[in-house]
Amino acid sequence: MAPKAETQNLSLLCDFYELTMGNGYFKNGFYKKQTYFDVFFRTVPDQGGYAIASGLHDIIAYVQNLHFEAKDIEFLRSKGIFDEGFLKYLRQFKFTGDIYAVPEGTPVFPYEPILTVRAPAAEAQLMETFLLLAINHQSLIATKANRIVRAAEGRAVMEFGSRRAQGIAGAVIGARAAYIGGVKATACTLTDELYGVPAAGTMAHSWVQMFPTELEAFKTYCQLYPHNAVLLVDTYNTLKSGVPNAIRAFKETLLPMGVKECGIRLDSGDLAYLTKKARVMLDEAGLPDCKIVVSNSLDEYLIRDLLLQKAQINSFGVGERLITSMSSPVFGGVYKLAAVEDETGRIIPKIKISENTAKITNPGFKKVYRFYDKKTGKATADEICLHDEAVAENASHTIFDPEDTWKQRTLTNFTVRELLVPVFKQGDLVYKEPALQEIQTYCQQEIETLWDEVKRFENPHIYNVDLSKKLWNLKRELLAKGGQA
Amino acid sequence: MAPKAETQNLSLLCDFYELTMGNGYFKNGFYKKQTYFDVFFRTVPDQGGYAIASGLHDIIAYVQNLHFEAKDIEFLRSKGIFDEGFLKYLRQFKFTGDIYAVPEGTPVFPYEPILTVRAPAAEAQLMETFLLLAINHQSLIATKANRIVRAAEGRAVMEFGSRRAQGIAGAVIGARAAYIGGVKATACTLTDELYGVPAAGTMAHSWVQMFPTELEAFKTYCQLYPHNAVLLVDTYNTLKSGVPNAIRAFKETLLPMGVKECGIRLDSGDLAYLTKKARVMLDEAGLPDCKIVVSNSLDEYLIRDLLLQKAQINSFGVGERLITSMSSPVFGGVYKLAAVEDETGRIIPKIKISENTAKITNPGFKKVYRFYDKKTGKATADEICLHDEAVAENASHTIFDPEDTWKQRTLTNFTVRELLVPVFKQGDLVYKEPALQEIQTYCQQEIETLWDEVKRFENPHIYNVDLSKKLWNLKRELLAKGGQA
Repeated sequence: MAPKAETQNLSLLCDFYELTMGNGYFKNGFYKKQTYFDVFFRTVPDQGGYAIASGLHDIIAYVQNLHFEAKDIEFLRSKGIFDEGFLKYLRQFKFTGDIYAVPEGTPVFPYEPILTVRAPAAEAQLMETFLLLAINHQSLIATKANRIVRAAEGRAVMEFGSRRAQGIAGAVIGARAAYIGGVKATACTLTDELYGVPAAGTMAHSWVQMFPTELEAFKTYCQLYPHNAVLLVDTYNTLKSGVPNAIRAFKETLLPMGVKECGIRLDSGDLAYLTKKARVMLDEAGLPDCKIVVSNSLDEYLIRDLLLQKAQINSFGVGERLITSMSSPVFGGVYKLAAVEDETGRIIPKIKISENTAKITNPGFKKVYRFYDKKTGKATADEICLHDEAVAENASHTIFDPEDTWKQRTLTNFTVRELLVPVFKQGDLVYKEPALQEIQTYCQQEIETLWDEVKRFENPHIYNVDLSKKLWNLKRELLAKGGQA
Repeated sequence: MAPKAETQNLSLLCDFYELTMGNGYFKNGFYKKQTYFDVFFRTVPDQGGYAIASGLHDIIAYVQNLHFEAKDIEFLRSKGIFDEGFLKYLRQFKFTGDIYAVPEGTPVFPYEPILTVRAPAAEAQLMETFLLLAINHQSLIATKANRIVRAAEGRAVMEFGSRRAQGIAGAVIGARAAYIGGVKATACTLTDELYGVPAAGTMAHSWVQMFPTELEAFKTYCQLYPHNAVLLVDTYNTLKSGVPNAIRAFKETLLPMGVKECGIRLDSGDLAYLTKKARVMLDEAGLPDCKIVVSNSLDEYLIRDLLLQKAQINSFGVGERLITSMSSPVFGGVYKLAAVEDETGRIIPKIKISENTAKITNPGFKKVYRFYDKKTGKATADEICLHDEAVAENASHTIFDPEDTWKQRTLTNFTVRELLVPVFKQGDLVYKEPALQEIQTYCQQEIETLWDEVKRFENPHIYNVDLSKKLWNLKRELLAKGGQA
């Protein structure tokens, strides 16, 4: 069985408090109240300028499979705190609400909703953990992968981190998210089987050690895989043994077959120094088509430095620092109640107040517009509006900073699109997922709409995410009342 | 279906190179050669003094379920590089080798084998990724949890991180590993159902927001769960609204029922300041049995600081910084070939050389002894030996530093035990796993055998892990030959 949300009953992958609250809502009648919950995040990992949304694929599968089996009900009953009526309700549970979400691969920014659930309270509450888990993990990895891919400046990046991933899904779904962020391949065979991300890899040090000599190991490999011979040259001594033996193996096996394409991989040592030396040795040996692949604790910072130092590298294998987003391993998405419908269907906005202003939530049922400048094609700002607002493309539109409200900007000559699209309506899937390859292409295209200033690794320009005047006023009103009715 | 190795076919959760190598071994006849692979690590996360081994439970399940289904073979065939004989071999694949491993919950140190596989080359190679993934992820979390639990100095620590975990297993198995490391409970309901780690939790901010007033939310909760009323007091204003409303709710609902045990949870703000103020308010209100729980970006460093500042805290909910081991999110276990048997069954040791001395492997089929001083009961050193060596408890035993060989120590009056125990023999499980609760207790007991100096968070004393004279000589011999035959 694959470690996928598609085929798993993950209904109990919830925080226990979702069940104690659900039971409470059931007993006091709140469970049928329509609620609105937003997923948003407050900071971009690695202090970057944008994140890449990912995780929707798993969420769709999770929602479609959401149910409680008899054994789950038994388990809950054994806790001795749940109402029998609530347990019966759970046994018949299915999702009946709406979900709006930003498509996978979309660049997203702090504070804007990237997913909104409208559903009866008990349903919406129960999904909190899984929705966050999927979005937080996969957006983290897609975002990190995208940084690393950009640092490689067009050279292929391969995801090599399964063995250091945090759990099975960390490896398998993580590699899918990395692909959305732009990697070309993965070492994880299962991710290829399940999602079609091309699996790649040739040999470990153990291959070389299994043979009496390195040369014999290399020649055997070239004979076996003449069209994909990437030889690992650092088992004994990279420049004195590995590269010379690789050259000899290529010349004695591949060249007689007319095969010119081949490669070496370096997995240790100073990669700038060693690749420059190796490149010269390969060229002097008449092997200009031999590619150099490097791996070993790479991330966007080391890749940038290696390229600045003119390291001779054709592609990168990136492991633990990608698959765990090692330098920034948490994506802090939260799930906050934004509104509740009253008996008449009127939407009552809700707010969570904090002494920390940045932690105050945006109330109401909302949507997000992204404005693109028609002349440059660049994304220029996002605006969070209430659901009944609309922006016309043929008019001018003034946006303002929600903190420093005197900072205003009037947009003209723009196109605009809504970021959140319907995924479920009354429990039914209404969204057609693009193929994974299309998601990768879409992600790449959308990133090209961002100004370079937003894409800087350090201290990027802060992209404008503003509130509509109507939402801004609503928020101030609720704040003035201290949140409670 | 649960996200567990027990019920999943994870045979393709391997790096693709394991299959290209396996195919190569199949074609040149190496696949039946008995090989020895060691799992070991080089540094402890967070620069700690020891790690806690975890992951064996999943490995046992993985090995028992390891097989290739028809669809897996079809997938591999579609790659166009695998021999039909090899695919047939995979279709019939089952593990036939031996595995030795350190029991879960054991404190372990850099460079010593914590798992050894003896198996035909193609089998042993194929398992590399999963064995490392399980040990690296779960040892990482068990180790981090143990640091956090120690910082809490006897106060309960609850694992609250599912929503920020790196994938499904990151949450579910991660919480199990955290339990081995000493946490008392988890928010993850599924980890309770699957592994029996007690699930805990009461309410989120949304519960409070769902009601017209905070007081009404609190009173409703107390009436529902009078014996487990932990009220979240920071939705609007902790000291002006949350704590006073909690006090009133306790007095108006719980006290009339005769219930004195209750609690409040703070999830934001300055936890030292707020808990001291709240403690005074609760005591003055006649609620000395009301416990204070805190959460919000805690780890061992912040917990230590809060307690130094005499914050009034009874227990901790720890989320993202535990479940991702945020300050040190990678456990760098590696899987290295240590020996190969020749046709006669003789064990030929193998070495991987590196310009970085620390990266040179220890050759041969090995075992690890741990020495405990009889007088103090403390662990005093580990020694890595070849498999045919033995240590007698009633004699003295001299150990020496493998780098600075003049540093010698003669041990007397010790007990000694082998750390690696047989788990599989010729493919059959021969190990009886302890219950999870026993593993937690064992872990705690073994940590008590470590000197405080080894347990320091920063700059701990380096515990001695030495090589036997025989192993040391063997390593030097192979190095002198440059590794190759």
